[in-house]
Amino acid sequence: MFSYKVNDEISIELLQQHDKEELYQLIDSNREYLRKWLLWVDKRKSPDDFTSIIPIWLHNYAENNGFDVGVKYNGKLVGMIGLHYIDWKNRATSIGYFLSEDAQGKGIITKCIEALLPYLFIKLKLNRVEIQVAAGNEKSRAIPARLGFTNECVKRDGQWLYDHYEDLITYSLLASEWEK
Amino acid sequence: MFSYKVNDEISIELLQQHDKEELYQLIDSNREYLRKWLLWVDKRKSPDDFTSIIPIWLHNYAENNGFDVGVKYNGKLVGMIGLHYIDWKNRATSIGYFLSEDAQGKGIITKCIEALLPYLFIKLKLNRVEIQVAAGNEKSRAIPARLGFTNECVKRDGQWLYDHYEDLITYSLLASEWEK
Amino acid sequence: MFSYKVNDEISIELLQQHDKEELYQLIDSNREYLRKWLLWVDKRKSPDDFTSIIPIWLHNYAENNGFDVGVKYNGKLVGMIGLHYIDWKNRATSIGYFLSEDAQGKGIITKCIEALLPYLFIKLKLNRVEIQVAAGNEKSRAIPARLGFTNECVKRDGQWLYDHYEDLITYSLLASEWEK
Amino acid sequence: MFSYKVNDEISIELLQQHDKEELYQLIDSNREYLRKWLLWVDKRKSPDDFTSIIPIWLHNYAENNGFDVGVKYNGKLVGMIGLHYIDWKNRATSIGYFLSEDAQGKGIITKCIEALLPYLFIKLKLNRVEIQVAAGNEKSRAIPARLGFTNECVKRDGQWLYDHYEDLITYSLLASEWEK
Amino acid sequence: MFSYKVNDEISIELLQQHDKEELYQLIDSNREYLRKWLLWVDKRKSPDDFTSIIPIWLHNYAENNGFDVGVKYNGKLVGMIGLHYIDWKNRATSIGYFLSEDAQGKGIITKCIEALLPYLFIKLKLNRVEIQVAAGNEKSRAIPARLGFTNECVKRDGQWLYDHYEDLITYSLLASEWEK
Amino acid sequence: MFSYKVNDEISIELLQQHDKEELYQLIDSNREYLRKWLLWVDKRKSPDDFTSIIPIWLHNYAENNGFDVGVKYNGKLVGMIGLHYIDWKNRATSIGYFLSEDAQGKGIITKCIEALLPYLFIKLKLNRVEIQVAAGNEKSRAIPARLGFTNECVKRDGQWLYDHYEDLITYSLLASEWEK
Repeated sequence: MFSYKVNDEISIELLQQHDKEELYQLIDSNREYLRKWLLWVDKRKSPDDFTSIIPIWLHNYAENNGFDVGVKYNGKLVGMIGLHYIDWKNRATSIGYFLSEDAQGKGIITKCIEALLPYLFIKLKLNRVEIQVAAGNEKSRAIPARLGFTNECVKRDGQWLYDHYEDLITYSLLASEWEK
Repeated sequence: MFSYKVNDEISIELLQQHDKEELYQLIDSNREYLRKWLLWVDKRKSPDDFTSIIPIWLHNYAENNGFDVGVKYNGKLVGMIGLHYIDWKNRATSIGYFLSEDAQGKGIITKCIEALLPYLFIKLKLNRVEIQVAAGNEKSRAIPARLGFTNECVKRDGQWLYDHYEDLITYSLLASEWEK
Repeated sequence: MFSYKVNDEISIELLQQHDKEELYQLIDSNREYLRKWLLWVDKRKSPDDFTSIIPIWLHNYAENNGFDVGVKYNGKLVGMIGLHYIDWKNRATSIGYFLSEDAQGKGIITKCIEALLPYLFIKLKLNRVEIQVAAGNEKSRAIPARLGFTNECVKRDGQWLYDHYEDLITYSLLASEWEK
Repeated sequence: MFSYKVNDEISIELLQQHDKEELYQLIDSNREYLRKWLLWVDKRKSPDDFTSIIPIWLHNYAENNGFDVGVKYNGKLVGMIGLHYIDWKNRATSIGYFLSEDAQGKGIITKCIEALLPYLFIKLKLNRVEIQVAAGNEKSRAIPARLGFTNECVKRDGQWLYDHYEDLITYSLLASEWEK
Repeated sequence: MFSYKVNDEISIELLQQHDKEELYQLIDSNREYLRKWLLWVDKRKSPDDFTSIIPIWLHNYAENNGFDVGVKYNGKLVGMIGLHYIDWKNRATSIGYFLSEDAQGKGIITKCIEALLPYLFIKLKLNRVEIQVAAGNEKSRAIPARLGFTNECVKRDGQWLYDHYEDLITYSLLASEWEK
Repeated sequence: MFSYKVNDEISIELLQQHDKEELYQLIDSNREYLRKWLLWVDKRKSPDDFTSIIPIWLHNYAENNGFDVGVKYNGKLVGMIGLHYIDWKNRATSIGYFLSEDAQGKGIITKCIEALLPYLFIKLKLNRVEIQVAAGNEKSRAIPARLGFTNECVKRDGQWLYDHYEDLITYSLLASEWEK
């Protein structure tokens, strides 16, 4: 119900229990595509697997500790975006996202992040926004690069992926670097 | 950040910690006006009195048990509206609201409720929407009347107000009565 | 063990774990009779279905938020009576009850409520006692009527019952109306 | 409200929030007398010191883990009696009590325990009932002795009392020893 | 990982999740021997039955309320020893233990307790250390006797053991009796 | 009480409530020295400020989610070392530490970490051990460098320190790089 308008085509929206069928369809019809980088995809086998997860996302928001919300393109759920946490002591957060295969190539996530930055830097007064991406995930890495984030770090073996560890690249943008 | 657009002028919006100053200003500058019917007004003596209340509103939303959100008119916080609870067993809810004195007379709350009804009856598949108003609160009573709610009940001595009990009038609208 | 004497034949009594067999027998032998108005009857399929419910009733009592107790007639469990909640802010409560078929016609519940009223109005200093009954439940409606409660309200579609909504009638008695 | 009748003069009764003034008066008017053996007496300095304790007593009862209840003599609160715990694994409990000074000498506690035993041995099916008393507390020791409990144990330095340790005497009665 | 050295051969050690296989092997290979006096042995049917128990032992330690730790002999887990609780009000604790059959006869538990006493009496400033043993468990009773504990009490029918009650003997040692 | 021996002079030890005076002395007598890099130092103004913190450290250990323990040199508390968390999904942890000024220069922390590595890589089967140090903290940075950790990352503005952000350097060691 509650959403944040990115532009005329794109919005991000808090998901509720009655969204779980649509959310499941999104995951299920992109299963092969998404599971490559997202370990949790295999564990979502029915809409009910979201019954206990959706409240967790909203409780995080209630606790001012980030959020996980749906990305809608022309009213259709095409992905999710979120803040994994908000580190209030150090005024930092980390953005994560995924997008369905057929919504790729339209800059949807890039535009979502662009629209989030004023909220993060001005409303929440954060100082540092981070995006961590698996080193081999070229598509995902292009997003922070395009947005002017600095490639700051290779966290070696940072993420377990089925049968091996992936390096994680950290991109970051500081408040002082952000051009409003 | 996350909002629901009612029309070009009006929106309702989940409030967060960084909204507490604006929320306090709204209450404080309407203190005499609001305290007449709202017992909690006297207890809000600084923005920090909302620090522990804002998460409660959001946790309710996370639990699919209603919400309390800000009402914005041309971007300015002018009131609040909410669902006190959602009774899923009987598919019913109860709407509450208040509005600043100078935002009166524009039909703002009426339009908010009108915009909420499709969400309540279609998305949430509720059957019954209730509005309870103190018998003496003429302004507030006009709203459900205008929206075609049925005046269904006088709950005698339903609410304690400083030094006496007020009767509460219940207005209700059933899904079957609602003209989409 | 702990009980409240209504008269020489009738008492109401806090139920404990060791009462669950007797409680189950009461429900099971009145299953058809009780399920007509009580949606939870179908869910009680063995004495153990009360194992987690009995502590809830007692914790409510511990929190000063009402109670659910057994009604005994000549030492035999014949029904239950309770306060669904105590609304301390508005000094109000709501009484609920059921009685086995063969204990009907003796005024047992009427006498229980009569005996509870001094406790509610004097000890707890409540101002308003409410009884909500399904509109079609003639037997149950007769009780508040007989006790001088005012028929105050029809809550349309107030309760879901298997395959339809029932209207709920609210009867109330105020402290000022009660003849001690 | 809920009580257990011992005889025409004596009953034991679950205490509620509205009993805290009477309970405080009992403690306060017997302060010197009671504090000799009860370390917690000094900590009860106003009726409100019972506000958080009364629910604990009732929650214990809800959890089937003993109780602490008032002892009434001709309707007046004169003491308390309780089961400190119920050890369901070993089917054992331990009884504790205190009585105001001017209610002494009437066998009140003795009669209360006598009345509790059928509940403990038959209803709860316990096997062992224990009473622990400070070695120097002659009055208190007389009670289990009079009831045929066996003096079974001296727990050396079992209880800290202001400035020294007291030995504790354990008296016990087994189900097999109890004459119904 | 964290241990307390008793002597060159013996140590006691906080157990962690990765110790559960070794712990299960200890129980499983001594099943007949241990179950005679330990009712919980039958409930441990796989290493995973310790998954939820090991954190309980450590949380007790975190709460300053005793511990349950492994006994190692030349690096091999041969038993467990623990403080069932710490009664800070009365400065008392109770020691429990078990040992594998083939580690018997070496004084392992006796030496562990001997090494624990300075910790209990000096570091924790306890006044009373208790050991409770089933009356029929000769081997176990020999330990407090050898350590100069006083046989202070027979708690009749103190423990349920499969099909009968066992008497429990309490042995105790006071700080004043302990020879450093 | 429970400790892990690093060598004849050095051990690390779980801290308990009775260690809080010694811990406070350590902090208080190194206040100026420690506060430069540790923001929490100013908040510890008496031994009692550790009363609620010590259980948190132990509960973390109970939950298999790292630990914070004292570092002892010849029996004297000279610092602390810990695992901030254990990321079991990715088999990674992060080590933190501080040392009193006059215990510097003896390689104490270096030896502690060296001794922890077999526990982390073999017992816990972790894959990655990380040490994060403020860029300007030369003394602290020397430790992972000396131990062969790889300088992998500069997290820009990673830590708020009184009046400015410090960059954080991440050093890491992988299981495959560790020479046993």
